Amino acid sequence: MEVISEKDEMRGIVERAKAGGLTVGLVPTMGYFHEGHLELMRRARAECDLVVVTLFVNPTQFAPGEDLEAYPRDFERDRGLAEGVGVDYVFAPEADEMYPAGSSTRVEVEGLSGVMCGRARPTHFSGVATVVCKLFNIIPAQKAYFGQKDAQQVAVVRRMAADLDFPVSIVPVPTVREPDGLAMSSRNVYMEPDEREQAVALSESLAAARELVESGERDAGAVAAAMRDVFARYPAVELEYISICDNIFLRPLDELEGQVLVAVAARVGRARLIDNMLLDVK
Amino acid sequence: MEVISEKDEMRGIVERAKAGGLTVGLVPTMGYFHEGHLELMRRARAECDLVVVTLFVNPTQFAPGEDLEAYPRDFERDRGLAEGVGVDYVFAPEADEMYPAGSSTRVEVEGLSGVMCGRARPTHFSGVATVVCKLFNIIPAQKAYFGQKDAQQVAVVRRMAADLDFPVSIVPVPTVREPDGLAMSSRNVYMEPDEREQAVALSESLAAARELVESGERDAGAVAAAMRDVFARYPAVELEYISICDNIFLRPLDELEGQVLVAVAARVGRARLIDNMLLDVK
Repeated sequence: MEVISEKDEMRGIVERAKAGGLTVGLVPTMGYFHEGHLELMRRARAECDLVVVTLFVNPTQFAPGEDLEAYPRDFERDRGLAEGVGVDYVFAPEADEMYPAGSSTRVEVEGLSGVMCGRARPTHFSGVATVVCKLFNIIPAQKAYFGQKDAQQVAVVRRMAADLDFPVSIVPVPTVREPDGLAMSSRNVYMEPDEREQAVALSESLAAARELVESGERDAGAVAAAMRDVFARYPAVELEYISICDNIFLRPLDELEGQVLVAVAARVGRARLIDNMLLDVK
Repeated sequence: MEVISEKDEMRGIVERAKAGGLTVGLVPTMGYFHEGHLELMRRARAECDLVVVTLFVNPTQFAPGEDLEAYPRDFERDRGLAEGVGVDYVFAPEADEMYPAGSSTRVEVEGLSGVMCGRARPTHFSGVATVVCKLFNIIPAQKAYFGQKDAQQVAVVRRMAADLDFPVSIVPVPTVREPDGLAMSSRNVYMEPDEREQAVALSESLAAARELVESGERDAGAVAAAMRDVFARYPAVELEYISICDNIFLRPLDELEGQVLVAVAARVGRARLIDNMLLDVK
């Protein structure tokens, strides 16, 4: 496995691989790998000839006052983990390689970026869409792998890629969970032990929603109420939103029908956590 | 020469050509070709193995109330002219092929898009940057040709391509002029004969600026004043702006130094005209 820090070198490797008939899989990450990241890499490894993982804590998707500086980093550990699952290249540029002085272009995905997490983080998805657009040009892979845990990010990236005609397939990969159900996240390390115990509220609320829908409930308000009942049992967990919406435009639904995204966000101590599930409602 | 209307077919042609080792030149246009467009095509023809001209009157770069419907169109004439200069493919999609229902992504080049023509047309350069970004993905050419007449467009596209890491060279091509100096433009047909005569004000003001700078003047205010004196002699021409700025960030200069862009915009009857020149000031 090789670590690359320059854009032109990285693009050259990918272009030569493609010219030789290989399929390239891209796994964009901010590092500090957990099983969720490794699952993306394994999936890419299984489906592609060449696997490139990017490791870049992207400053433009953090707002002032968010956790850019505190965001956990451990490059040596990450390098070993990536190598362990058979990654071919890690692209780890410095910030000024990605954003040289004078950069001023922003990619905005309207509608999808302002709802759900976009309310608390109004500039976040523009930062995501912009850096992913850049990564698609630096690593013109045929497939790009994103964790379904970040459901809104998947929707924004899929919309951006389609709208800007990037010839790449966006592959969402199911969320990997801790034994008690907590979705894996680099930000889980921000929690104190007692907070960590209560963080199960998110996945439990989703399980409650699933049970209710499976028993025939189709009213979004009733499902959300049952979810709030779960959160009420965990006082250390401050619910930010429950969203019950379609999975393409992220528009809130009154009645559950078709592919439904049920998503939650909550603060637990210093951590802001998100989780979601997709339901196919007949 | 072949006319293509579907994105996937167009991309396939370009990708196969590149896989075969050919260089591809892209000439994005809104059609109604004049000598300026043909010059772009000839330049691409001279420098590239495969030349693709796009012909698309892009709705997102027109604001409500602008001339989207009135914009002159003559597809059969354009097809013959492109064929005459040796173009290989004309890509002429319908609007719903370029912007299917649900499209919501915008590319914004901050700073450069709000000055000069961006004051009168605040959404214009976002429309330009977005459609050019799409065209770079549909026709992943090594070189893309743009008329220097639209100097701000060149600056915005160059910034966008660099910021989003598109691996394409932006090639500006010198403005082609009528015998009296008027820069060629599809919008020149909007003028009545008496207006057309006075439209020479724009290029004459630039000539006056050049003469003054060549005689040693370095004060931008003095140069602009001399240009306004020229406009004062043409009452049918309503000056919109004079900009004396650097050619990268389009920041106004007090003193002329280095590569200087001198640009003007004016209304003449129904037409909104622009013109500019680049000066290398020692």
